[in-house]
Amino acid sequence: MSQTPAPSPAPAAINRLAIIGVGLIGGSLALSLRQAGYCREIVGAGRDRASLQQAQSLGVIDRFELDICAAVHGADMIVLATPVGAIESVCRALRGCLAESAVLTDVGSVKASVVDAVRIGLGHLPAGFVPAHPIAGRERSGVEAATADLYEGRRVILTPLPESDPQACQAVRRMWEVAGARVEDMPVDHHDEVLAATSHLPHLLAYTLVSSLSRLGEQEEIFRYAAGGFRDFTRIASSDPVMWRDICLHNKEAILGMFKHFARDLELLGEVIDAGDGDRLLSIFQRAKQTRDRFCERPDS
Amino acid sequence: MSQTPAPSPAPAAINRLAIIGVGLIGGSLALSLRQAGYCREIVGAGRDRASLQQAQSLGVIDRFELDICAAVHGADMIVLATPVGAIESVCRALRGCLAESAVLTDVGSVKASVVDAVRIGLGHLPAGFVPAHPIAGRERSGVEAATADLYEGRRVILTPLPESDPQACQAVRRMWEVAGARVEDMPVDHHDEVLAATSHLPHLLAYTLVSSLSRLGEQEEIFRYAAGGFRDFTRIASSDPVMWRDICLHNKEAILGMFKHFARDLELLGEVIDAGDGDRLLSIFQRAKQTRDRFCERPDS
Repeated sequence: MSQTPAPSPAPAAINRLAIIGVGLIGGSLALSLRQAGYCREIVGAGRDRASLQQAQSLGVIDRFELDICAAVHGADMIVLATPVGAIESVCRALRGCLAESAVLTDVGSVKASVVDAVRIGLGHLPAGFVPAHPIAGRERSGVEAATADLYEGRRVILTPLPESDPQACQAVRRMWEVAGARVEDMPVDHHDEVLAATSHLPHLLAYTLVSSLSRLGEQEEIFRYAAGGFRDFTRIASSDPVMWRDICLHNKEAILGMFKHFARDLELLGEVIDAGDGDRLLSIFQRAKQTRDRFCERPDS
Repeated sequence: MSQTPAPSPAPAAINRLAIIGVGLIGGSLALSLRQAGYCREIVGAGRDRASLQQAQSLGVIDRFELDICAAVHGADMIVLATPVGAIESVCRALRGCLAESAVLTDVGSVKASVVDAVRIGLGHLPAGFVPAHPIAGRERSGVEAATADLYEGRRVILTPLPESDPQACQAVRRMWEVAGARVEDMPVDHHDEVLAATSHLPHLLAYTLVSSLSRLGEQEEIFRYAAGGFRDFTRIASSDPVMWRDICLHNKEAILGMFKHFARDLELLGEVIDAGDGDRLLSIFQRAKQTRDRFCERPDS
């Protein structure tokens, strides 16, 4: 983590980057863009002075503002990196101080409700707004967990709106590419369904498993015998609870749909186990193993 | 992986070790005991000549026999390392050729049904039989995945029976300690309940998640957006399908009990999400995170 740009930086394409919410996600973006010499200045904003001071002393941001309008003043790129539940109030605070030329984007794990929050908060959807979702994270959160390589090789999904200006889309895409990500476009609703399946459901299963076991009585003992598989399986239960509360509240329909789908499949597996049908069990496990091996172990996946 | 013992080996405490089923688990035990110079000779047995030849050429075993009675002839320690479903027929084949002084143990992930299988297969429970379960594994299986350090620091649970000879227990315990494991005793039924919770349920959730997603239609796309958490979560769905079929068939009651417990908890979480109760969601996630962090990240866990 260096406070000086790399020796031969690409020409800075962002003059002033404002990051609202400098935690793991926003902080890592700042670090990687800084390392690439892609921003002349990075301004942080948020509610917690101590955390912003830490971000500054870690070299993640150049300076910070507690007043959000001061933070976005003169910024050509604004990244909303707060939990999803805070976006509406942040946008309300931005009313009247958002430059028409500014590009606005976010990092939320859900997109339909973020679009609603921006529309309601600002009172309209500005042409400079391009919703985005970097599919990356760690079980640790906060700016102290930020790293410059968090997005290296990871996917970032943009969900441009009919209102979105193509040049704004291009600017957001370029920023994420400079951070090392592979960028793709997807419609808003489709994004929310795909992520409910591949991210939200697994996280909620991991949380439920840990809760479920911790209510079994002999807690100490239960967890003592948890093997490596259990650790891997439940690592995501150490993710940020506030972020996951917000995801549940803001992608309710898609998540509940996936819950039903999964619960029915678990019930079916229980019926096969109860019937003692070894052939059927073997074929279920073989197919799952083949699918998982095929999709998850490819070097480019 | 060396074919010669370590420079200053402890005196070999096993004269002839017979391993029935030389895959990941049996092969790794052989490698670690060989590295410690703990066995004068290691004999492998199984049904698949090619796999036994591979085990021999990898230096995992000294020689092999396709005839199980020939394999255990003169062996002072016999390890049943086949899938759980094969134990009864293996024991049937051992009838009449098992020396009374031989110590017999297994590595099965379930214990009550292994004890039944040994009793039925041999026609009685010999005093030399000490059931055991090393809590270790990898998503890869087969002897080519075996490593000498698989059991380093891992737990091995012994479930001695009223019939078990204390000296046999001591011999099995010592063997696993030499392989690097921490050995503990537990009653048979309690073992099966604890493992249903901490190992069998998570594996079956991972298998179900992968199956469930693979039936969602756009398979390619679904898995393309699976993030790191999903990979961790489903790694155990790449485990050996035959082993997991046998575990399901042989620990049915405990597993179905855990399914009910989990399904009810998942349903409750769905109700909280549906109600949009953010405070309750936050407290569920915070508690799960605390529990997971407390039990799973301790260096000694």
